[in-house]
Amino acid sequence: MKAAVRWAGDAIEYIDQRRLPHETHLECARTVNELEAAIRTLAIRGAPALGVFGAYSVALLRQTIGDDAAFSAAVHRVRTARPTAVNLGWAIDRVLAADDMLAEAHAIHEEQRLTDRLIAQAALPLFSKTTRVLTHCNTGPIATAGSGTALGAIIGAARAGKRLHVYVSETRPLLQGARLTTYELEQAGIDATLIVDAAAAFTIQQKDVDLVIVGADRIARNGDTANKVGTYGLAIAAAHHGIPFYVAAPRSSFDLCLESGAQIPIEERDGDEVRAFGGVATAAAGTRAYNPAFDVTPGRLVTAFVTEYGVLQPPYAETVPELAYRPNVEVFA
Amino acid sequence: MKAAVRWAGDAIEYIDQRRLPHETHLECARTVNELEAAIRTLAIRGAPALGVFGAYSVALLRQTIGDDAAFSAAVHRVRTARPTAVNLGWAIDRVLAADDMLAEAHAIHEEQRLTDRLIAQAALPLFSKTTRVLTHCNTGPIATAGSGTALGAIIGAARAGKRLHVYVSETRPLLQGARLTTYELEQAGIDATLIVDAAAAFTIQQKDVDLVIVGADRIARNGDTANKVGTYGLAIAAAHHGIPFYVAAPRSSFDLCLESGAQIPIEERDGDEVRAFGGVATAAAGTRAYNPAFDVTPGRLVTAFVTEYGVLQPPYAETVPELAYRPNVEVFA
Repeated sequence: MKAAVRWAGDAIEYIDQRRLPHETHLECARTVNELEAAIRTLAIRGAPALGVFGAYSVALLRQTIGDDAAFSAAVHRVRTARPTAVNLGWAIDRVLAADDMLAEAHAIHEEQRLTDRLIAQAALPLFSKTTRVLTHCNTGPIATAGSGTALGAIIGAARAGKRLHVYVSETRPLLQGARLTTYELEQAGIDATLIVDAAAAFTIQQKDVDLVIVGADRIARNGDTANKVGTYGLAIAAAHHGIPFYVAAPRSSFDLCLESGAQIPIEERDGDEVRAFGGVATAAAGTRAYNPAFDVTPGRLVTAFVTEYGVLQPPYAETVPELAYRPNVEVFA
Repeated sequence: MKAAVRWAGDAIEYIDQRRLPHETHLECARTVNELEAAIRTLAIRGAPALGVFGAYSVALLRQTIGDDAAFSAAVHRVRTARPTAVNLGWAIDRVLAADDMLAEAHAIHEEQRLTDRLIAQAALPLFSKTTRVLTHCNTGPIATAGSGTALGAIIGAARAGKRLHVYVSETRPLLQGARLTTYELEQAGIDATLIVDAAAAFTIQQKDVDLVIVGADRIARNGDTANKVGTYGLAIAAAHHGIPFYVAAPRSSFDLCLESGAQIPIEERDGDEVRAFGGVATAAAGTRAYNPAFDVTPGRLVTAFVTEYGVLQPPYAETVPELAYRPNVEVFA
């Protein structure tokens, strides 16, 4: 498997995730137009991967744009290409504040790799010897430019000898579960079964699913979690069946400035994503559609957060803000 | 709008629902192969419409097959083409027991039309002056060969002057919501918004949905309800948000022989429906898929059933079996 995101000297090389699983196509972004389009079209996606991509974007733009005002405007375009994932803005701010921007971007990427390994380590005790897991969207190596968050934890547990069966919800409208997660699970040699999103609650019941684990795009101080649309319904279904609902995410996905999820901006994408699939219209062209890319799961439905600093339990209003005082993972590891 | 199912003398004429909304294509079934295929491929679907189609099928087969054993075998093939909807077997049994099979099939069709009107009438008080409704799959005129059950109730309420906004979940894998329900709502001039199934819980919360109403394929004596996969998750989400969850269905969808939903056979369809859409593969070909066409919602999550005999309230173990003693709707009306 090629790297999801890679610094290539005068460009950022990345896998165009829209073409997976049928084709592993490497693409290069050099200009601000290309950087912005890569993010906006979801050629590159996944909150932590967006952070790494954003970090390299700033370093690249600084190399190519001499004028400070033009540079700032270009960075702003990258920063606002998608509004919900906090990692993008977080990584951009870190790079902007550094003397050596490229070195800082590399450091962010390296920290992400280490963070993913630490998340998988922290998650290991959550899996029994034999565990049936349900996950949503894609949170593997492709999504983080490391080893993954929720899916990284699943892959790590399987490598540590746990026998897992993973139910993957396809994740309409863009099918990241069907296209990316089943592909990464197959590469990792883990048993997986694909379902439509609407079958999740029945699958939890019929297949005795033991736990649900997902990633996150932004988490508020009280544990309210913005993640791919569908997450909220899964959390409600998990609570209804009395099984744990875990969110695996690095500190960079926590937005300690926000008191609650009500303050998280939710990206609404074009209705055509709902009205069509793969260029084939499913509904009449005039049909109105509501297409929020994310939803917000209240912290009270989250059993625990799995971070590079270990597992956070409720009350989140106390345990989440403490993340601010943790040393960086290099120091910590 | 042409009739969803129509007796044509030496054939059953029906709209091939797979081609909607792009094309209203009338198809004719004459042989047992054609009848069985129409049901199995979902060219004709919707529990009440399957009942009407099954009724005419028996009359047609009796016209064309002289040999009793061959006739029985042909009827058996039609009866077992889909296992979950009880209306198919119920209608077939009624026609088989009648002296004039064709007259009985016509009577079943006529009763279905009357039943739908009575369901819409009974549902009217459930809608406030202004109501935001969420529905799943397709339960309109196309699905019943009458005026519809849940969607018929919605259309009836709008005609009676209620201001409605209907959120329609697309209903993967076969997209009956996107293809059929948005189409029928547009024809009826009712405001509708299409969402992906995974967005249902967030939509209920963000758009202040007032109630959820769906149809049913088979209902047990205790109120456990088999309906299109996704219904169970919607019922859980409705309960979580404290809004009513209604099931609109004719008596013919109640199976009074079954104590609970655990006894309802659930059709599992080909995994390719999940792995692809419109001939475009979404997941790798080797991906395993779980594709239950229906799920079972426990009666305790159903606020009320809307039938041609009025609204049934819990405890369903008492109110549902009483349906057996009601006179036929012709007498009743």
